Amino acid sequence: MLTVNARSTVSAGAPFTATTIERRDLGPHDVLIDIAFAGICHSDIHTARGEWGETLFPLTPGHEIAGTVSAVGSEVTKFAVGDRAGVGCMVDSCRECEHCLAGEEQYCLKGFTDTYGAIGEDGRPTEGGYAEKIVVDEEYTLRIPEGIALDAAAPLLCAGITLYSPLRHWNAGPGKRVGIVGLGGLGHVGVKLAAAMGAEVVVLSQSLKKQEDGLRLGAGAYFATSDPDTFTSQANTFDLIISTISANVDMGAYLGLLKLDGALVNVGLPEAPLQVPAFPLLGGRRSLAGSMIGGIRETQEMLDFCAEHGVGSEIEVISADQIDEAYERVVASDVRYRFVIDIATMA
Amino acid sequence: MLTVNARSTVSAGAPFTATTIERRDLGPHDVLIDIAFAGICHSDIHTARGEWGETLFPLTPGHEIAGTVSAVGSEVTKFAVGDRAGVGCMVDSCRECEHCLAGEEQYCLKGFTDTYGAIGEDGRPTEGGYAEKIVVDEEYTLRIPEGIALDAAAPLLCAGITLYSPLRHWNAGPGKRVGIVGLGGLGHVGVKLAAAMGAEVVVLSQSLKKQEDGLRLGAGAYFATSDPDTFTSQANTFDLIISTISANVDMGAYLGLLKLDGALVNVGLPEAPLQVPAFPLLGGRRSLAGSMIGGIRETQEMLDFCAEHGVGSEIEVISADQIDEAYERVVASDVRYRFVIDIATMA
Repeated sequence: MLTVNARSTVSAGAPFTATTIERRDLGPHDVLIDIAFAGICHSDIHTARGEWGETLFPLTPGHEIAGTVSAVGSEVTKFAVGDRAGVGCMVDSCRECEHCLAGEEQYCLKGFTDTYGAIGEDGRPTEGGYAEKIVVDEEYTLRIPEGIALDAAAPLLCAGITLYSPLRHWNAGPGKRVGIVGLGGLGHVGVKLAAAMGAEVVVLSQSLKKQEDGLRLGAGAYFATSDPDTFTSQANTFDLIISTISANVDMGAYLGLLKLDGALVNVGLPEAPLQVPAFPLLGGRRSLAGSMIGGIRETQEMLDFCAEHGVGSEIEVISADQIDEAYERVVASDVRYRFVIDIATMA
Repeated sequence: MLTVNARSTVSAGAPFTATTIERRDLGPHDVLIDIAFAGICHSDIHTARGEWGETLFPLTPGHEIAGTVSAVGSEVTKFAVGDRAGVGCMVDSCRECEHCLAGEEQYCLKGFTDTYGAIGEDGRPTEGGYAEKIVVDEEYTLRIPEGIALDAAAPLLCAGITLYSPLRHWNAGPGKRVGIVGLGGLGHVGVKLAAAMGAEVVVLSQSLKKQEDGLRLGAGAYFATSDPDTFTSQANTFDLIISTISANVDMGAYLGLLKLDGALVNVGLPEAPLQVPAFPLLGGRRSLAGSMIGGIRETQEMLDFCAEHGVGSEIEVISADQIDEAYERVVASDVRYRFVIDIATMA
């Protein structure tokens, strides 16, 4: 066992404190990653605050992990010491079901193993990236290409793939008009990715407060959803809309923005059921869908795409002592656009 | 003008009475159809009872029309006297928008012209198939192939295409497991069509009351949705589910029946918004969608498919004096599976 510095919380909503956690000894297929940066995802906050059901405490969150390989198991073939490596939301899955075999481990029929807050194959709770090191099976480890800084890369491991996968699945690209609802940690990466894919990108945000940013990130237009005119002037114009928000919205109005055969894809997870009028679905053969992160193969494809197109997350780097403060600011939507913990401050 | 016998209702919920209506003189592109049979669609009842907003009275419903061409306009090229012909839900559309040009007139951006209860291009209310004759532009007239009896063909013009179009759009066929929710006027045709397409068909019905029929019509299995076991034993097994019902159901449970990337398609029109939990959408990249009849080209394709595969509606033929009684029985789900008015009884 390897003892490493970490930041953990001991109960729902309790502040983060400096502690140590144990990492398993390197198995033959494992890589040891010295973590350089860990992004703060809204899921970390929901979990740490017990908002998504019972949480295993003490909890060390973090599933946007970027660092450097410092040791490899005896049978590892894909990584070598010194390689830049990342870990996202999954550290294992059944590897046998049809979805795992198809490289869609995020839809593993037995449920994938979350990077933190789950029970790993060894029977111990998994612990995430708010820590100096992590041990992960090479099959669930990503390669971070040269050309993306590790701090800007970290949020791609969750926020990036969460947007990349549905953009690809629903064929964002040249000739397609793509709306991104919400310009936050997820949305801002979505704007960059969709623009890099060649789509016409439109931000649909509560207000015009971040309009300048949206246009700079690659959007061709920016509309306020608080303005009812948006839903009339833009009706029937979108091929695809990806909603990154968890708030309950007027689903009929959003569906009405779609063209024939358009899809509105939720990647946020509202707690209350969505209220969906049937007519806008029937009246344009529209779809309401959902999408959840992406598989390991697609996550690697996303990282390679980002390196090729110069896409990284817009970040604010914080020290390990600022996690509680950062959580407050994320909840208040006061971050442009992702907090990343500098793990070097954890020593 | 041509005066023809018809059955009309003068106000919401008033009984049907024998009357006459006027059909326009034959224009150069028009065909005159001597109607043999007209199906009774649940939409007729909603409209006649004023349940779908304001209705133009007096109303002559009927958009499942089958008969024989008895005259053609001077420039008609697609039909000749004596041809078997049908009319469905549309008698016109803008013919200019991208959807009309693509042959998807049902999604006409200006709204297609309903066969009854709308205002036609000539400024007069359109009147449907509960009548001896109808005049329709040849472009909105369907050819009913030999090999389908006109009475069994009539319901295909609405019920048939309403199921055929989404089955095709979502790729029902060999290797696909297709669920049909509700075994009524729409659902029973859906079972026949999906089976003819080569799919594995499963009926999901409130009870097992019609199980024998369902299996006879082509279903491989039949489950009661009143039995909670259905939603566990059949979870993650469907590629496509088409819901023909208008009742509010537990959408989360139905979505959970779908495999990865499966679609639940509504062709019924529930009045209250659907309550859709986000997790079952995200957790399997599932879609909730809608579909509305089909275009003229696809309706013809459906009729040809039905002739080739021996698919017709299961019907109960009634006389023109039995319309009110039939309406009561449709509302009580007491029909196997579609009432068809024998227009010869109207004289």
